[in-house]
Amino acid sequence: MAKEIRTIGVMTSGGDSPGMNAAIRAVARACAYYNVKCIGFYRGFQGMIEGDHCVLNARSVRNIISSGGTILKSARSEEFRTPAGRKKAARHLKELDVDAMVLIGGDGTFRGGQIFSEEHDISVIGVPGTIDNDIAGTNYTIGYDTALNTVIDAIDKIRDTASSHDRLFFIEVMGRDSGFIALNTGVGAGAEEILIPEEDMGLDRLLESLKRSKRSGKSSSIVVVSEGDKIGKNVFELADYVTENLPDYDVRVTVLGHVQRGGSPTCFDRTLASRLCVKAVELLLDGEKNVMVGLLNNEIRMTSFEEGLKEDYGINKELLRISDILST
Amino acid sequence: MAKEIRTIGVMTSGGDSPGMNAAIRAVARACAYYNVKCIGFYRGFQGMIEGDHCVLNARSVRNIISSGGTILKSARSEEFRTPAGRKKAARHLKELDVDAMVLIGGDGTFRGGQIFSEEHDISVIGVPGTIDNDIAGTNYTIGYDTALNTVIDAIDKIRDTASSHDRLFFIEVMGRDSGFIALNTGVGAGAEEILIPEEDMGLDRLLESLKRSKRSGKSSSIVVVSEGDKIGKNVFELADYVTENLPDYDVRVTVLGHVQRGGSPTCFDRTLASRLCVKAVELLLDGEKNVMVGLLNNEIRMTSFEEGLKEDYGINKELLRISDILST
Amino acid sequence: MAKEIRTIGVMTSGGDSPGMNAAIRAVARACAYYNVKCIGFYRGFQGMIEGDHCVLNARSVRNIISSGGTILKSARSEEFRTPAGRKKAARHLKELDVDAMVLIGGDGTFRGGQIFSEEHDISVIGVPGTIDNDIAGTNYTIGYDTALNTVIDAIDKIRDTASSHDRLFFIEVMGRDSGFIALNTGVGAGAEEILIPEEDMGLDRLLESLKRSKRSGKSSSIVVVSEGDKIGKNVFELADYVTENLPDYDVRVTVLGHVQRGGSPTCFDRTLASRLCVKAVELLLDGEKNVMVGLLNNEIRMTSFEEGLKEDYGINKELLRISDILST
Amino acid sequence: MAKEIRTIGVMTSGGDSPGMNAAIRAVARACAYYNVKCIGFYRGFQGMIEGDHCVLNARSVRNIISSGGTILKSARSEEFRTPAGRKKAARHLKELDVDAMVLIGGDGTFRGGQIFSEEHDISVIGVPGTIDNDIAGTNYTIGYDTALNTVIDAIDKIRDTASSHDRLFFIEVMGRDSGFIALNTGVGAGAEEILIPEEDMGLDRLLESLKRSKRSGKSSSIVVVSEGDKIGKNVFELADYVTENLPDYDVRVTVLGHVQRGGSPTCFDRTLASRLCVKAVELLLDGEKNVMVGLLNNEIRMTSFEEGLKEDYGINKELLRISDILST
Repeated sequence: MAKEIRTIGVMTSGGDSPGMNAAIRAVARACAYYNVKCIGFYRGFQGMIEGDHCVLNARSVRNIISSGGTILKSARSEEFRTPAGRKKAARHLKELDVDAMVLIGGDGTFRGGQIFSEEHDISVIGVPGTIDNDIAGTNYTIGYDTALNTVIDAIDKIRDTASSHDRLFFIEVMGRDSGFIALNTGVGAGAEEILIPEEDMGLDRLLESLKRSKRSGKSSSIVVVSEGDKIGKNVFELADYVTENLPDYDVRVTVLGHVQRGGSPTCFDRTLASRLCVKAVELLLDGEKNVMVGLLNNEIRMTSFEEGLKEDYGINKELLRISDILST
Repeated sequence: MAKEIRTIGVMTSGGDSPGMNAAIRAVARACAYYNVKCIGFYRGFQGMIEGDHCVLNARSVRNIISSGGTILKSARSEEFRTPAGRKKAARHLKELDVDAMVLIGGDGTFRGGQIFSEEHDISVIGVPGTIDNDIAGTNYTIGYDTALNTVIDAIDKIRDTASSHDRLFFIEVMGRDSGFIALNTGVGAGAEEILIPEEDMGLDRLLESLKRSKRSGKSSSIVVVSEGDKIGKNVFELADYVTENLPDYDVRVTVLGHVQRGGSPTCFDRTLASRLCVKAVELLLDGEKNVMVGLLNNEIRMTSFEEGLKEDYGINKELLRISDILST
Repeated sequence: MAKEIRTIGVMTSGGDSPGMNAAIRAVARACAYYNVKCIGFYRGFQGMIEGDHCVLNARSVRNIISSGGTILKSARSEEFRTPAGRKKAARHLKELDVDAMVLIGGDGTFRGGQIFSEEHDISVIGVPGTIDNDIAGTNYTIGYDTALNTVIDAIDKIRDTASSHDRLFFIEVMGRDSGFIALNTGVGAGAEEILIPEEDMGLDRLLESLKRSKRSGKSSSIVVVSEGDKIGKNVFELADYVTENLPDYDVRVTVLGHVQRGGSPTCFDRTLASRLCVKAVELLLDGEKNVMVGLLNNEIRMTSFEEGLKEDYGINKELLRISDILST
Repeated sequence: MAKEIRTIGVMTSGGDSPGMNAAIRAVARACAYYNVKCIGFYRGFQGMIEGDHCVLNARSVRNIISSGGTILKSARSEEFRTPAGRKKAARHLKELDVDAMVLIGGDGTFRGGQIFSEEHDISVIGVPGTIDNDIAGTNYTIGYDTALNTVIDAIDKIRDTASSHDRLFFIEVMGRDSGFIALNTGVGAGAEEILIPEEDMGLDRLLESLKRSKRSGKSSSIVVVSEGDKIGKNVFELADYVTENLPDYDVRVTVLGHVQRGGSPTCFDRTLASRLCVKAVELLLDGEKNVMVGLLNNEIRMTSFEEGLKEDYGINKELLRISDILST
């Protein structure tokens, strides 16, 4: 029989993302609703190791649903990769009578949680919070939708000046291993080309495409580039290469950077965070563990960590085809 | 054998929604890509009746992906409800060699298109464009996500002043027959109560809930009300009723109104519009007709008009429960 | 000789406005910088009467510069209009060793402060915080610039749908006694007509102008109306009147309401609040009192309350002429 | 006697800025109002040289008041620096019967206009349009206020993630020769330090300040750096230097870049553009020339090019002091 859950811990880990506060609020409020104590740990696994924590009640999360960042702060912890580190964390949790943890973060967070849960008798449920959307167990991670709109807003602004000056802009967006942000914002902003890590477009095809675009009468162009695109050059080298080979183009580069991590979350990210975290608490109370919750095919579902962390998180390459058609 | 499609018409009808321009752009660009002529009709069915049209090529839709409203304008047409009106429209389409139509709009638009298609030999495909999200054949209609964020942004602002003055605000949002906007923005904005047409909360429960909220120490509150909520009073009567019965509360009303229809579409609405409309054109070229395209369970799918227009478009009442838990 | 100032109080009063938090922060930080104690009173004069206060140090105002509303809350106080109420307030201030007060608010706040300062030995300096901009002693009040942009953003959205449906919108904005918001947003949003309390346009001229606009080929129109416009009808009566007399027009009304009071302040309002409040603290330390600080002709200046509260706060009617020219 | 003005030309030149479209609209509408023909030249002086132009009437500028960029495009022209280039431009203007020009741009634009006006009998009036605000003849240039808010919005987002991860961010903003943007956004965003070209802070003082900030308990910090700051290192070198010397800090860099040039203009920039350009047209009709119009001490005034282009455009170093006080 599952042990009774009287205290639930919560933390945020990995790169922060908009909606993490909405998620923390939902955990704290759901705990209050079900008369369970809620303890927040600071800076992810590191706070668990150090016992750095606070008690979260319904009031302590008032008015944070609309704010970016995470009141629990986030970090990556080297120490938690060691059995000794995890043992320290387990000891602190025991001392605080924490029976279960809600871990808000990305794949690294879930992997850490999985090992931790196997080594120590703590129920763990993961909630996907990362702007990268690279988690198989959900169609949308918390923060991803906000990041898309932040990028769209920035590209729209750059489009204004690109058009005024007949320029070609290379815009680097986040996504070291996955092209979700580049692909969706590229289509959403009407970019002429999109470069993602999952697909090697090749430099020749890029040049060819830009030449064609010029011939068709377009005077300005936007190319959206994922940090980790496969073409083997960083965005500045790419810009130099194009400048050398297509001297007609007046080329500029913008690296959007960390603005993509901040900002007030969109309605989608707030409701997603709210739904996933209420579910996470309810699942823990029902005796579940070692799973993540996600939005799959428009429903809140749980998935085992193994399944949820599969490499193939299903990027929609169909969008590359859509982009080709629409940038005609 | 399906006749060959050489010219495709497109129009927007019913209440306008953000992303309609992205949709028009996608139809025009997909037509250009497949070497099909594209003709835009102004003011929905009315423009078809009057033959009020323009030729759309890849250039004519440049830079409209980010703008709200619809360059083809929108209207409701009484005349199209008559066989004579539809006959006129069919004649104009014949004269212009229009073989098929993409209709961007809501349920009324689809019903008009269905009858029209049955009476006259014109292939018709519907694309759901409305902020109301009340179409069974898709989980998301174009414009809905933008409207949610417009509302969230407004409620966040009102929350600022509600907190400063310890006030209770009733905020009316759009949704005459469906509570999608109220429900999702209510959860997203952390509203204390949500009133929707699909569920009669009852005045007593509302008063009870507000009293409880006051007792719990909340000094300000937000109640999100759908235009067509079931409680049988409009938002001003509701406010008066609460003022009389809970004199402790300093009550204010805001009717958000038409701001909800405008604004630059979100990334989600832009990519949704792009994907649905490319698909609509491709389906027409493949000989399909009398269907709508939608995003169902994270995939672009077609649904017959009959199926797509079912009354039960599946509002997620689970969100009411989530709201109850989170407004603890 | 001026007495030494060791403790400065601060409060926000009247209708709240974006930037009040930036102002509170600047008072608290300037006090910390000059080694003066800072005490915040809640809900304006009412908190002074009740002794409802908190100590503000550099940390307590961290990260509030970007948030709307006021952490000290705001209210109107009937009791402070009585000598007895003011006496209570003075007693609380004495008990707390408050030597001087920074009052952030509008004309009512300043008048209250002036009387209070005359009756009791408390140095008072006023900082103009109101979205209405109706203070003679400054060209810009804190919150006004943010309100302008909130309104502009809303009208831009309404313009989208007005254009799509060929409609005429009457948009009511705040300003019961002054037309600053209507006038500047009317010009900024390219409104066809602007109705303000300072100028009686007359119904005939309005109809004439709208007819002319229709004849010139404009299919949609925006009329911005100040709450307190002189035409003697409220915005709904106005809309009815126009509908009756110009049946060609499809008329709609939007009352923007309290969204205008909220939101993250603009850069202008934040720097204005910062500059004015540092100056207010420095003036108090220099022995000044009974003055307001303002931005006059691009410089921070102090003005006596008498002068600063003159009726003629100089609305720029020239903008009505500009609007006539530009809505050609 | 001044010759009669029957045709006025308008162009935008130099780096584009938000509000240039509002300015073009105001010139075109004012011309329409005064029954003067209006001709727009593309890409600044270059379009004048090439005779690349369009006729602008009241309709052609409809709905552009809210859009960023410039419909007339902008460029820098090497050819116009030569007498031969300017002669070509004058010839085209003569052919088109252009009697006078409104030049919208920065100091380079005004200098070009001044020489051109002296060499050829064309009346020229300058309107300050640049995000840099580095023009002595006006307190505000068109586009500057919008750029400030774009930067503030970006820094607020970065602040979210900086706080979550306890990081120090160096944020580079535009302003090669002037620190207006850095100074005002630094104060507006509550930056810990601000580095501008007008003031050499020195590396030692920067390190000292950051150390002090750390000691005071701040875990995250923002330093706003002007492109052309005096410290002699670019923003990446600065970050490296600080990382080496203050290993406690986790340092990141964001270069905001061209997003600062785009976006829908603020209310302030729209009304400023409207007022300045109506005035410019009216002054030309009154026989004025060789002047710029600006907003000085809250009034629209004209200034001779000589005066308006003085080196000392009066940056407000007082803000550095304010920043020191407020970042306590």
